[in-house]
Amino acid sequence: MGLKIEGGDGSVEDLARLKVAALAGGVGAAKFLRGLIEIVPQENVSVIGNVGDDLTLYGLHISPDLDIVMYTLAGLVCREKGWGVEGDSFNCLNMLSRYGFDPWFKLGDMDLATHIYRTYLLKSGLTISQATLELCKRLGLKVKLIPATDSYLRTIIISNEGRLAFQEYFVKRRCEPKVLDVVFEGADRAEPAPGVLESLEEADVIVLCPSNPILSIGPILAVKAIRRLLRRSQKPIVAVSPIVAGRALKGPADKIMLELGLKPSALTVAELYRDFLKVFVVDVRDGDLKPEVEELGIEVVLTDTIMSDLTKQTALARETLKAALRSHM
Amino acid sequence: MGLKIEGGDGSVEDLARLKVAALAGGVGAAKFLRGLIEIVPQENVSVIGNVGDDLTLYGLHISPDLDIVMYTLAGLVCREKGWGVEGDSFNCLNMLSRYGFDPWFKLGDMDLATHIYRTYLLKSGLTISQATLELCKRLGLKVKLIPATDSYLRTIIISNEGRLAFQEYFVKRRCEPKVLDVVFEGADRAEPAPGVLESLEEADVIVLCPSNPILSIGPILAVKAIRRLLRRSQKPIVAVSPIVAGRALKGPADKIMLELGLKPSALTVAELYRDFLKVFVVDVRDGDLKPEVEELGIEVVLTDTIMSDLTKQTALARETLKAALRSHM
Repeated sequence: MGLKIEGGDGSVEDLARLKVAALAGGVGAAKFLRGLIEIVPQENVSVIGNVGDDLTLYGLHISPDLDIVMYTLAGLVCREKGWGVEGDSFNCLNMLSRYGFDPWFKLGDMDLATHIYRTYLLKSGLTISQATLELCKRLGLKVKLIPATDSYLRTIIISNEGRLAFQEYFVKRRCEPKVLDVVFEGADRAEPAPGVLESLEEADVIVLCPSNPILSIGPILAVKAIRRLLRRSQKPIVAVSPIVAGRALKGPADKIMLELGLKPSALTVAELYRDFLKVFVVDVRDGDLKPEVEELGIEVVLTDTIMSDLTKQTALARETLKAALRSHM
Repeated sequence: MGLKIEGGDGSVEDLARLKVAALAGGVGAAKFLRGLIEIVPQENVSVIGNVGDDLTLYGLHISPDLDIVMYTLAGLVCREKGWGVEGDSFNCLNMLSRYGFDPWFKLGDMDLATHIYRTYLLKSGLTISQATLELCKRLGLKVKLIPATDSYLRTIIISNEGRLAFQEYFVKRRCEPKVLDVVFEGADRAEPAPGVLESLEEADVIVLCPSNPILSIGPILAVKAIRRLLRRSQKPIVAVSPIVAGRALKGPADKIMLELGLKPSALTVAELYRDFLKVFVVDVRDGDLKPEVEELGIEVVLTDTIMSDLTKQTALARETLKAALRSHM
């Protein structure tokens, strides 16, 4: 086994020496990661982020999921919403609507600085991964946040109202259209951004954060070289279920699963990851699913997965790491 | 003579039928124009604006003088400062400085929407004159605000600290460097924007607003076809002095004149415009300059030029139009 900590008992001291690579979507992932960095030093954490949700608005490049992770780990995020900047104002957006724009995407004034700076860096010739590194550095983050790919990759919702870019579906249309299919435009040619495969190879534990498996983790796994590496990896690969008692804790994962003919449950998530997943952290409320998930060859750990505060975020991260380590002992 | 109002006595009714074309800089011009539109319907007014001060900041195209005129005439301008939007916040700028930018240029959040939208329009292939028209239309302006040129034209200050872009000199360095020369980069090849020559030809009165003759009106007159048209024009061309009793009412005009070896006075302004100016509106405090200005072949009208409120702005605009009309009767 590739773990550096052999025979460890999963004590806090041991966990603090782990190198962790995490695949992350938005709010759910950010909360989990916020807990994780209470246990593992930021320097030891690589986050592979989702860019399928990216959009260009008013000429600005916006990366909603990367920003949610960045703001959360930098302590800037609006706690109530889970996205945007705490205490932000919306004066620019109000003026943009006076100029005739539909202000469907709620861009705060402080938040705008991120998009202005990112767009400036991209126009200067940087890749999205280089621009993200620069933004994170400026905000004092030591976590390595790497977009899954520097290539063009966009999540498209094929709906009963036609093709919708992810944010159009998610924000503008409030997830109301019926989802017929989900397509990752550009995925066929998308290469992992520099550092993605390396961080997965160097990690002691690989975590799939509690994010929408189709819309948030899906675009990352759609980068073929990433999924291929996970399938071949000997590392403990652990996922945290974003579905509890058949309901998504956040976002439309359950609704989308139903519309795609899948049963919204932790079991379905396990099936979506079955080609590489070794350990699955499932909420105690879903204990009855344990036998079915284990039939897929995936070890199940039951715990409380509701991350209502930092204590619970930290506890979940700790249980997840311990479960990964135990599976490899 | 080209006036449509022959034998008019300059009554309000007559003035309201005039077509006016005005060459304008920033704050002084905007105040004058604010008074003008109390007398002449907005539809009858064309403003030829200065783009020599334009700059690109954080990837955004900013046109400070055009915006001052636009915000003032739309009733949005910050009254105390004379620029920016009343009641604006600066949250984006604060965040940009967190990202490492020097926040020397005071961009408000509402103001930013203008630059974001302008940049978006320019990136979409519009010219600066088309983008300006669109911005003004969205803010409900009926005045035709036309940038002097769609070509690249930038005011460069040759100073004891080297070459400085105008806003670097004006805002970042607070006009402290000594001015050795002023250069209008690109002026040789600059063509008037569509509508500029037409509005000057169609106007009953051409006004040079009380703006810095070197730095604000200078870049407009540096477009050769504009100055050539003024020289040949048979229309009443009237200027309002921005210098009162040897001092600029706003900005560094007096300081710059001194540094360039010119005496800061209304007479110097008249000399700078002598090749086309017919009537000069000078402050009553400068009555002693009348004979010298008239020796240049320019008619002088003395009045109170301090525009401390809308009543005085309107009175000055009325006196200016009346002086222009009288000179042609």
